Amino acid sequence: MRTVYVNGAYVPEDEAKISVFDRGFLFADGVYEVTSVLDGKLIDFAGHAARLKRSLSELEMESPVSEDDLLEIHRHLVRVNEIDEGLVYLQVTRGAADRDFAYPAEARPSLVLFTQAKPGLADAPAAKKGMRVISIPDRRWGRRDIKTVQLLYPSMGKMMARAAGADDAWMVEEGAVTEGTSNNAYIVKGNTIVTRHLGEEILHGITRAAVLRMAAEAQMKVEERSFTIAEAQDADEAFVTSASTFVMPVVEIDGEPVGAGAPGPVAARLREIYLDESRKKAV
Amino acid sequence: MRTVYVNGAYVPEDEAKISVFDRGFLFADGVYEVTSVLDGKLIDFAGHAARLKRSLSELEMESPVSEDDLLEIHRHLVRVNEIDEGLVYLQVTRGAADRDFAYPAEARPSLVLFTQAKPGLADAPAAKKGMRVISIPDRRWGRRDIKTVQLLYPSMGKMMARAAGADDAWMVEEGAVTEGTSNNAYIVKGNTIVTRHLGEEILHGITRAAVLRMAAEAQMKVEERSFTIAEAQDADEAFVTSASTFVMPVVEIDGEPVGAGAPGPVAARLREIYLDESRKKAV
Repeated sequence: MRTVYVNGAYVPEDEAKISVFDRGFLFADGVYEVTSVLDGKLIDFAGHAARLKRSLSELEMESPVSEDDLLEIHRHLVRVNEIDEGLVYLQVTRGAADRDFAYPAEARPSLVLFTQAKPGLADAPAAKKGMRVISIPDRRWGRRDIKTVQLLYPSMGKMMARAAGADDAWMVEEGAVTEGTSNNAYIVKGNTIVTRHLGEEILHGITRAAVLRMAAEAQMKVEERSFTIAEAQDADEAFVTSASTFVMPVVEIDGEPVGAGAPGPVAARLREIYLDESRKKAV
Repeated sequence: MRTVYVNGAYVPEDEAKISVFDRGFLFADGVYEVTSVLDGKLIDFAGHAARLKRSLSELEMESPVSEDDLLEIHRHLVRVNEIDEGLVYLQVTRGAADRDFAYPAEARPSLVLFTQAKPGLADAPAAKKGMRVISIPDRRWGRRDIKTVQLLYPSMGKMMARAAGADDAWMVEEGAVTEGTSNNAYIVKGNTIVTRHLGEEILHGITRAAVLRMAAEAQMKVEERSFTIAEAQDADEAFVTSASTFVMPVVEIDGEPVGAGAPGPVAARLREIYLDESRKKAV
């Protein structure tokens, strides 16, 4: 049985509970981060901690613990749950208070962390096979740059993809791809990597930032701009990035093969570079 | 201390807890209802039960208990918590499961209910004074007809209103008012009551349906269509409806007085009719 962290205590997972008055439960008034673990070490913890700080700040929420304490909680959970490859999930909410839309004056933020073991995370078969995606309208709220737990639409999107026999969905707004249900979206055309520019329309992916930096260091050309589904279907390659899938090829969009309909060399190379570099810097 | 209902048990409020793995907490994958209590009886329980059923159906969720059992839980909480005037809050989530965007195959839905005592609810001073609202862009997700707990933006809206010295916010999309942060919005011009038509853009208010029916029975003219903030500022009256505020006049929009800048006769009459009729049918 997993050990879970809940508001200062390490408890068995079946005792890991929060108040029904917690605003994370009643108002989705909370933010989260997911950090990957490889070789028992945290991938880009500093990036996730920095984004968490920004999400909290955008919502006028306090961090319940210092960044050092947060790192120590992550490490403790990885250790006691014997995670070699997997994830650490972290959620901060505005805390418990009698239900009212207005932010409570005196609530103390809640902090929950748990691990998920994912053996074979780095060597996922999907990376060799590639993913098939469908396009769906992006019907999420307007502040997707804040990593809130308002994840019902992405969940619905994942189910729409399954119903269509696909692996995931890319969301489209005003004719352009925003991102995947839980990842950033990319295409490759003529040696140029294209991914949507940052803004309130998409999550500012920690893996996205690292991959773009590494691509530039490897002398690859990167363009940050919108693209359409038609442009993606006509690309040489497509892929997604996220903290838990790293770099993952996309081989089919709305039933149309991308390029040769098989994982391409740019995604494969970026995945290799990303995993190598990230393992070296893991803490 | 209140008694709260959590998944089959009546517990003291400080023991009312749910799993941190509950999808209501992790994904905002849950829906809710708020039913008013007057004279210790439930207002329009059947309407709320019907909307709950629809919300669950739209999200492919099961109801954890029958409608009869739901009524009995409401009544039991009203009784043990000695609620004369107040609210019963109900939330159903998809339940606890290891975290994954896809809906879990085997989770059992969670059910939570609690009461809030609101002495003076029917005789609220705000009904005599009227509310001041500001307009804000509507940045919520696209399926506002499903009453989900994705309420962070309405919460932010309430805080924006407070920061501007107002009581609430009306949300605007493509130039037209959708609704208030937790209520439906209306204007009155030349004896015609105007409120936005139903669609995925707004909540299908239970109080809205009752008030429109009662207005028609009282020979008032009703138009269900979009309106702008400018049209509202130029109206004779404005008001909102919700399960917890009934009919509440709006006397100022973005600093501009509506009509005489005081509660008008149509809102006052509708409030009276609504309270009278609802009390008679309360269960």
